[in-house]
Amino acid sequence: MAGTPITVAHGDGIGPEIMEATLHILEQAGARLDIETIEVGEKVYQRGVSVGIEPSAWESLRRTRVFLKAPITTPQGGGFKSLNVTTRKTLGLYANVRPCVSYHPYVDTKHPQMNLVIVRENEEDLYAGIEHQQTHEVVQCLKLISRPGSEKIVRYAFEYTRRNNRKKVTCFTKDNIMKQTDGLFHKVFDEIGAAYPEIEKEHWIVDIGSAKMADTPEAFDVIVLPNLYGDILSDVAAQIAGSVGLAGSANIGDQCAMFEAIHGSAPRRAGQNLANPSGLLLGAVMMLVHIDQPDVAEKVHNAWLRTLEDGIHTYDIYKEGVSKQKVGTKEFAQAVVDRVGKRPEKLKAVNYSHAPKQTVTQDATATRPRAKKEYVGLDLFLDWAGGPASQLGPQLEKLEGDLKLQSISNRGVKVFPGELPGFVYSDLWNCRFLAAQNGSTVTHSQTVALQQRVASAGFDIVKTEGLYTFDGQRGYSLGQGE
Amino acid sequence: MAGTPITVAHGDGIGPEIMEATLHILEQAGARLDIETIEVGEKVYQRGVSVGIEPSAWESLRRTRVFLKAPITTPQGGGFKSLNVTTRKTLGLYANVRPCVSYHPYVDTKHPQMNLVIVRENEEDLYAGIEHQQTHEVVQCLKLISRPGSEKIVRYAFEYTRRNNRKKVTCFTKDNIMKQTDGLFHKVFDEIGAAYPEIEKEHWIVDIGSAKMADTPEAFDVIVLPNLYGDILSDVAAQIAGSVGLAGSANIGDQCAMFEAIHGSAPRRAGQNLANPSGLLLGAVMMLVHIDQPDVAEKVHNAWLRTLEDGIHTYDIYKEGVSKQKVGTKEFAQAVVDRVGKRPEKLKAVNYSHAPKQTVTQDATATRPRAKKEYVGLDLFLDWAGGPASQLGPQLEKLEGDLKLQSISNRGVKVFPGELPGFVYSDLWNCRFLAAQNGSTVTHSQTVALQQRVASAGFDIVKTEGLYTFDGQRGYSLGQGE
Repeated sequence: MAGTPITVAHGDGIGPEIMEATLHILEQAGARLDIETIEVGEKVYQRGVSVGIEPSAWESLRRTRVFLKAPITTPQGGGFKSLNVTTRKTLGLYANVRPCVSYHPYVDTKHPQMNLVIVRENEEDLYAGIEHQQTHEVVQCLKLISRPGSEKIVRYAFEYTRRNNRKKVTCFTKDNIMKQTDGLFHKVFDEIGAAYPEIEKEHWIVDIGSAKMADTPEAFDVIVLPNLYGDILSDVAAQIAGSVGLAGSANIGDQCAMFEAIHGSAPRRAGQNLANPSGLLLGAVMMLVHIDQPDVAEKVHNAWLRTLEDGIHTYDIYKEGVSKQKVGTKEFAQAVVDRVGKRPEKLKAVNYSHAPKQTVTQDATATRPRAKKEYVGLDLFLDWAGGPASQLGPQLEKLEGDLKLQSISNRGVKVFPGELPGFVYSDLWNCRFLAAQNGSTVTHSQTVALQQRVASAGFDIVKTEGLYTFDGQRGYSLGQGE
Repeated sequence: MAGTPITVAHGDGIGPEIMEATLHILEQAGARLDIETIEVGEKVYQRGVSVGIEPSAWESLRRTRVFLKAPITTPQGGGFKSLNVTTRKTLGLYANVRPCVSYHPYVDTKHPQMNLVIVRENEEDLYAGIEHQQTHEVVQCLKLISRPGSEKIVRYAFEYTRRNNRKKVTCFTKDNIMKQTDGLFHKVFDEIGAAYPEIEKEHWIVDIGSAKMADTPEAFDVIVLPNLYGDILSDVAAQIAGSVGLAGSANIGDQCAMFEAIHGSAPRRAGQNLANPSGLLLGAVMMLVHIDQPDVAEKVHNAWLRTLEDGIHTYDIYKEGVSKQKVGTKEFAQAVVDRVGKRPEKLKAVNYSHAPKQTVTQDATATRPRAKKEYVGLDLFLDWAGGPASQLGPQLEKLEGDLKLQSISNRGVKVFPGELPGFVYSDLWNCRFLAAQNGSTVTHSQTVALQQRVASAGFDIVKTEGLYTFDGQRGYSLGQGE
């Protein structure tokens, strides 16, 4: 039987040792792999390739679509770009997957029962970093959430749960405040979750959910969440599990997936047969499930758990009274190989081989019927420091033309018409214009002409946001009090 | 000596009992208060006042500027608005302050040494909830950070630290990604912190900082952070301290400040002399420091700590083997009164009375010289599903006129000019136009005319963002790869 083609990079520092140990274990456990080796990292950077990877290496990744990557060293100094950011952006790796597991009593933790997986959306949200300063006082960043992006990550989370024989998916959002952006993510979670009746589903508001996770992480199984929340909570979860040095992660895209340890290349430990290969090995276990070799993944993972509970530990987790034998990288790998076929007796064994197969392809973002989109008005944002709203409103009303000034908001609070005594204004004003006739639509030539009138009157228009309905539903929020 | 005028609301459920207990302790400890009583909550809602507070009560708040509030019950069913949201918005309560303290071994916690205070910005960030859907796929929420808003919260955090005799302020942001919004908050932290040489200052990226706080909260003292991060981390901190039932909080504004317990009105426990008044009492201690009676605050707080360590506990924290005596609300209050003048022997005593006075007024947002603002271009966002960027770019170039198409970005990544094979496009395109001559400025009539040309060519312009420089510094981010 032909092996699955994968691309391997041995990396820098302790990378080559832990990769060698990992590949030795995979091979001995019967993994069916056809390995292409590429070079990334320090030497490539030093040859003047600013992203740390050669064009020929991209070809291998596009061919095999599976990347097992050892830690690399990014040289100090300017001009070098993060290989991980480049890979993520170039290959569209939309999911970051990070299991956070306690191995009590073999590794110290305050949370002995913890065993959860963070599935973080990795391309959207505030992390596009689209920022604008348009007034002296106020700076803006755009938070963007898309339906296809939300569908991909949520579907991945459910598929991951099924294939890894887990039981529950929890979604975290702040949709009590961000009803449209986080609301969309939550809605997609409910829609897609319906196709997985055997999986338990729950949703938490991110503040309370985070508190629960930090205090009682054993209450969670798989957690799927937008980029920013995922960034924060994946670090929290990895830290409180107490096993940052033992953790692997996956970055999943439509075209390619990358598997690695979450730790770095530790150059000072390099070449001494000291390093713990567990993080990379657990990354490789995720890869085996991903490439449809769950039987081998299960064998490797259970042999590793058995090694851990047999007290055969590398220096980083060795503890007098708990550990039985302190070993080097190679000896640890051999101990795992010797236990292939065995299961842990105290730690919970994993079970991948009987999990259901993948049921939908990852890129099957369904073509949905397009809603009827209607243009109903314009939010005109002004940089203005001329006094309270009662000064601004009447001036704008004179410029209404065939539109109508509906309201003015400042800092999200409606301040015109109506008074708010003592309100502290910023210099960014949102002036909302709708069609003069209730419920009518507007045209671009009307809203462009409005801008022309307002600009000619000397106002500084710093941004506009179109107001739309979709199938008659309002696509924009109201100001507080509007 | 005349008392300080304060407004008191006795609230619903257990509110009246714990307020009575709290006021009894304050009085016996020598607090100099001139109390006005108002009614808020359930009965007011039931009289048909949708915000749960009468106009006459606002007058008292505007007069005293200090509000000690017991928990209230918001009736079930639609139409009732949160009193806290209304108060925060109406009175501009920009700071939410929440001490999170462990009382080990008297209250269970995994973090026995924890003693930190979260100072959360409470008006800005994504919580204005300004959202727009403008294409079929993408929804947007605006994150807004202002200089005056950042200055107020950061200055408050340093003043709080000084007056409460704390030693360190930590700032959390994600300014490695959000260089302008979170960058502004961080910059303001550095600027204002410089005026407090005796206070230690540090900054953490919010992901790593949150992990550190969840794992090792004893490493922190006062933490100041933007609204969203503060929302998440104040809940995490309160939860892991293990003392949600004992915690007070403050909401601070220029005009008014509100002090309360963080727990609710617990109607089922009402009227039985069971409830623990500690949360409200600790809120009142914060109030005493705020109104410049730190000597009384210190006496009350230390007497309370002594009561706790003497094992005199209400039912909610009573524990066989740890507690000495189970008492009711009144008896607990009397036990605290009996200890006024005493200090704890095992728990750490508080020390407010020798702290330096407030050094600046809260509303002293300095008038800064205005930077020279120049209009240099326009980001034109299109809803377009017509193919890759190489189809869109040439069509827009034909419409440039006296401006120049600099780049097109999609999901924050530059996609024109230049190719990105395999990139997954959303239907929201950011088309960046600058002055045709490098480094020149543009006018509103130029950018309005551009919009007219683009709209006339049949494109759907869904939003615009003006591009500005401030004193020659670029006020907008570049697309990835731009």
